[in-house]
Amino acid sequence: MRVRHKPWAEERLKDFPQYVIQQPESHKGKWREVFGNSNPIYIEVGTGKGRFITEMAKAHPNVNFIGIEVFTSVIVTALDLLIESELPNLKLMNVDAVNLRDYFDKGEVNRVYLNFSDPWPKKRHAKRRLTYKTFLSIYEDILPKQGEIHFKTDNQGLFESSLMSISEYGMLLTFVSLDLHNSDFEGNIMTEYEEKFSNKGDRIYRLEARFQ
Amino acid sequence: MRVRHKPWAEERLKDFPQYVIQQPESHKGKWREVFGNSNPIYIEVGTGKGRFITEMAKAHPNVNFIGIEVFTSVIVTALDLLIESELPNLKLMNVDAVNLRDYFDKGEVNRVYLNFSDPWPKKRHAKRRLTYKTFLSIYEDILPKQGEIHFKTDNQGLFESSLMSISEYGMLLTFVSLDLHNSDFEGNIMTEYEEKFSNKGDRIYRLEARFQ
Repeated sequence: MRVRHKPWAEERLKDFPQYVIQQPESHKGKWREVFGNSNPIYIEVGTGKGRFITEMAKAHPNVNFIGIEVFTSVIVTALDLLIESELPNLKLMNVDAVNLRDYFDKGEVNRVYLNFSDPWPKKRHAKRRLTYKTFLSIYEDILPKQGEIHFKTDNQGLFESSLMSISEYGMLLTFVSLDLHNSDFEGNIMTEYEEKFSNKGDRIYRLEARFQ
Repeated sequence: MRVRHKPWAEERLKDFPQYVIQQPESHKGKWREVFGNSNPIYIEVGTGKGRFITEMAKAHPNVNFIGIEVFTSVIVTALDLLIESELPNLKLMNVDAVNLRDYFDKGEVNRVYLNFSDPWPKKRHAKRRLTYKTFLSIYEDILPKQGEIHFKTDNQGLFESSLMSISEYGMLLTFVSLDLHNSDFEGNIMTEYEEKFSNKGDRIYRLEARFQ
């Protein structure tokens, strides 16, 4: 994503500690305390401007959601949505996904969402794709046994490489749609990107995969 | 495939025993004798009118090919191609794929091709799809360890269900293309169907998967 620099964004995130988790490593093993309940926790890695995770949190009040985004200038828009909606079951984290093990114990996250992740189309950048084996290993370490990732993208090359990466990791593919918006899948919540690209007529690909 | 009945077809197949294997169960464990060499054997399950397997046999003279087709009225066209081309490394078999174990020992077939198989779109017919687990089990029993299936189709639903079936079987996806004709895949040989549907603008899906 091309990101416009917003020098004030970092300050703004700090102004809302009730929404944007400060020092997430201090909550490792104690996320129930953060939400004040023992509902499952679903995270979105690369939450962008936050529309997906905000709508998900509205639709599923008995699930806790955490939107994770490395770009300060982007997550600040997600914060605006959260301030407006005042959702008690949604938090944001301005951190890098490579460090997720520092923030969550094994099994503390119940599901991982990846939506329209950066495709990193060049082969030499394959390791940066959020479905590369090193990232799958991170998700495995914070999910319970048989934990799931739910992934969608409009990028054909990323979807192809993700299918192979997931297979090579030994995960089980439990759902595949090669044209989500023309399928009978129910309850889809669109991201900002998804709306834009599907309006252009692009296909949306989606999969669910389970660690075993 | 809708098949026009050709009452003379069965007789014609019998007239060319050098091309159409009679009593294939008699060759089980002895396929080297049939071809007179020890080259690898690649089979196509559902060979239809035979264009793919004939072109493959021309392109790969050091591989033996067997085209397998249950419909007598269809394979008779493949026979015409073979009579014309006189390929020494191609044979045909007018049999049902469910019986492949009766014809081949473990490891006697080195690769299985599935091209534009009948999609059987209704859920209650899923067991008839050539990528259903019972068929995968048959292929596993005639292939060597780490044997491969190579599959292509224009049918989105069949490709989706095949990805899941292959994953559930524990096979490794080693190649996936969601738009074969707009990819950098080289050496593709088109079937009759493939040419027709890709000319209409339909996507062709292709995968390779390995038993492990």
